[in-house]
Amino acid sequence: MSNNVITISREFGSGGRTIALAVAERLGYNFYDKALVERIAEESGYSKDFVERRGEDATSTSSFLFNLSRSGSGGYDGVAGISDKLYVIQHNIIKQLPEEGSCVIVGRCADYILKDYENALHVFIYADMQFKVNRIVKLYGERDVAPEKRLEEKDKKRKVYYKNYTGRIWGMSENYDVSLNSGKLGIDRCADIIVELAQR
Amino acid sequence: MSNNVITISREFGSGGRTIALAVAERLGYNFYDKALVERIAEESGYSKDFVERRGEDATSTSSFLFNLSRSGSGGYDGVAGISDKLYVIQHNIIKQLPEEGSCVIVGRCADYILKDYENALHVFIYADMQFKVNRIVKLYGERDVAPEKRLEEKDKKRKVYYKNYTGRIWGMSENYDVSLNSGKLGIDRCADIIVELAQR
Repeated sequence: MSNNVITISREFGSGGRTIALAVAERLGYNFYDKALVERIAEESGYSKDFVERRGEDATSTSSFLFNLSRSGSGGYDGVAGISDKLYVIQHNIIKQLPEEGSCVIVGRCADYILKDYENALHVFIYADMQFKVNRIVKLYGERDVAPEKRLEEKDKKRKVYYKNYTGRIWGMSENYDVSLNSGKLGIDRCADIIVELAQR
Repeated sequence: MSNNVITISREFGSGGRTIALAVAERLGYNFYDKALVERIAEESGYSKDFVERRGEDATSTSSFLFNLSRSGSGGYDGVAGISDKLYVIQHNIIKQLPEEGSCVIVGRCADYILKDYENALHVFIYADMQFKVNRIVKLYGERDVAPEKRLEEKDKKRKVYYKNYTGRIWGMSENYDVSLNSGKLGIDRCADIIVELAQR
């Protein structure tokens, strides 16, 4: 019998990572968030910091630069070239994770990469703006940029990244098995639902 | 304390209506599917059959005709004019339903119309194509048109109808509190999750 995999995609500030960690702990599954970044760094030779910056929340790969360098002649090792290389490495690692044990994987297009893996449960966590604003201010403190703007910018990057590598629309129900509004249902209840579904 | 409302939007063939009915029965809630069509017919003066045909699965209101009659001068009582009138009546009835008791409402933009109603749980049910094909062939039998085509056409109409009246994208997780893949989780399990959430 093959291992179980739970992929958790999440809006920034929705508590998706917290839910993912709680689920992994309760089920005794491997947890891949920072651990995935470390693996990608190891296999690519880039630093963890670099991998993180060029990942799904990429701040240096605007969609404009992205498209420009993809459509332009040559320069494949430019901005998009590096992102593409990292994506391939990430893709190969994620494909392999289920063989190493049951696991919970946060973000990084894992829902798409493992869409054909039979024992997978694909989850999307989101919340209303006010819930997310309260949460990130509490967790990360105030910044120069308004929390609404921080949230929008972060998710916009994830959307672009996801669309670019999967061709899908980030947050469309059909990409996942379950989508949960953590602001409405609460973080604990979301974790409960996922654990219950995984145990069946 | 105000009444509870569960709105259930669903892809054709996903079993969303069956789930909605099971939930209503288990919770002892009013169930609005055909009953809503009857109310709209009563208040509008049109026949049930007419209301059904001009509703969310409208077969006579193609998006082309729709836009044409909306953008053209005059002719407001044409194709779109009637749909718009029916929508207003439907909107007013749906707004009023929670006052009459806890209820489950299927489709008809109820998620949007009641988006600000506090005691509401908004659900979206969908499934993979094969599950839906098997289900509609079993329930409604074979037709001249291939089941895949029937499914696509029906949902396309719902998408256009929803977009037109709500400005939202049908099936986007953020429109709902919970989105469930009935093909993956099973119809009974979906009903269980909704009942559990409503009872808390």
